[in-house]
Amino acid sequence: MKLEHIGIAVADIESTKNLLKAIFGAEPYKQEVVASEGVITHFYDAGGVKIELLEATSTDSAISKFILKHGQGLHHLAFSVDHVSTDFERIKGLGIQVLGEAPKQGADGKWIFFAHPRDTSGVLMEFCSEQK
Amino acid sequence: MKLEHIGIAVADIESTKNLLKAIFGAEPYKQEVVASEGVITHFYDAGGVKIELLEATSTDSAISKFILKHGQGLHHLAFSVDHVSTDFERIKGLGIQVLGEAPKQGADGKWIFFAHPRDTSGVLMEFCSEQK
Repeated sequence: MKLEHIGIAVADIESTKNLLKAIFGAEPYKQEVVASEGVITHFYDAGGVKIELLEATSTDSAISKFILKHGQGLHHLAFSVDHVSTDFERIKGLGIQVLGEAPKQGADGKWIFFAHPRDTSGVLMEFCSEQK
Repeated sequence: MKLEHIGIAVADIESTKNLLKAIFGAEPYKQEVVASEGVITHFYDAGGVKIELLEATSTDSAISKFILKHGQGLHHLAFSVDHVSTDFERIKGLGIQVLGEAPKQGADGKWIFFAHPRDTSGVLMEFCSEQK
């Protein structure tokens, strides 16, 4: 079990950036717009694991809907796997609902898929790998 | 910014244990009852960072109240600091609400305190150190 990053849904990424600077003296090492997901992301090194801030750029992005429903806060955990395609089928075979028809390209050059939190103790889990 | 662990509030720790075994082949390396917090905890090594499952043992524990309000899922992020007592005052000085009058003893032999998620982008943050 290798945690790759933690995703946090935020309403105003600049405000959270200022907060993390004030608390930890931390700065993002990378910023990326993922147009397909309708998000701006900032990545932080939290000592062996990444923290990814996500701000919605459109009202129909998943992050926008999440914040409307739950408010801002912890959004997902992403775990590294060797090949998302293999794990997509394996995890589906465990009776866990996976989202989408197949893995897709996500932020940070990764191939990703998600499992539905209903089947994973309330935690939205992302699975990611470098290769599809 | 050094993430020490991620806390997940679960309704039935044995069920989540079985889930993590099925998905990752993972087993907890430690189990601990923290009577003062009214929780059973299981710790997992997620590759440089810990995942802490928390199940309530009494209806008035914070985990029990969290699950009633939000359902099970991601609960808090814990960050390592050098001395919680120093950071307790420093973070309070930033205008961030800290919980309690002083750091207290938590799971895993740590001294800890929490900051209110209202002031930290919706994320319940724990700060912990070996020494008070």
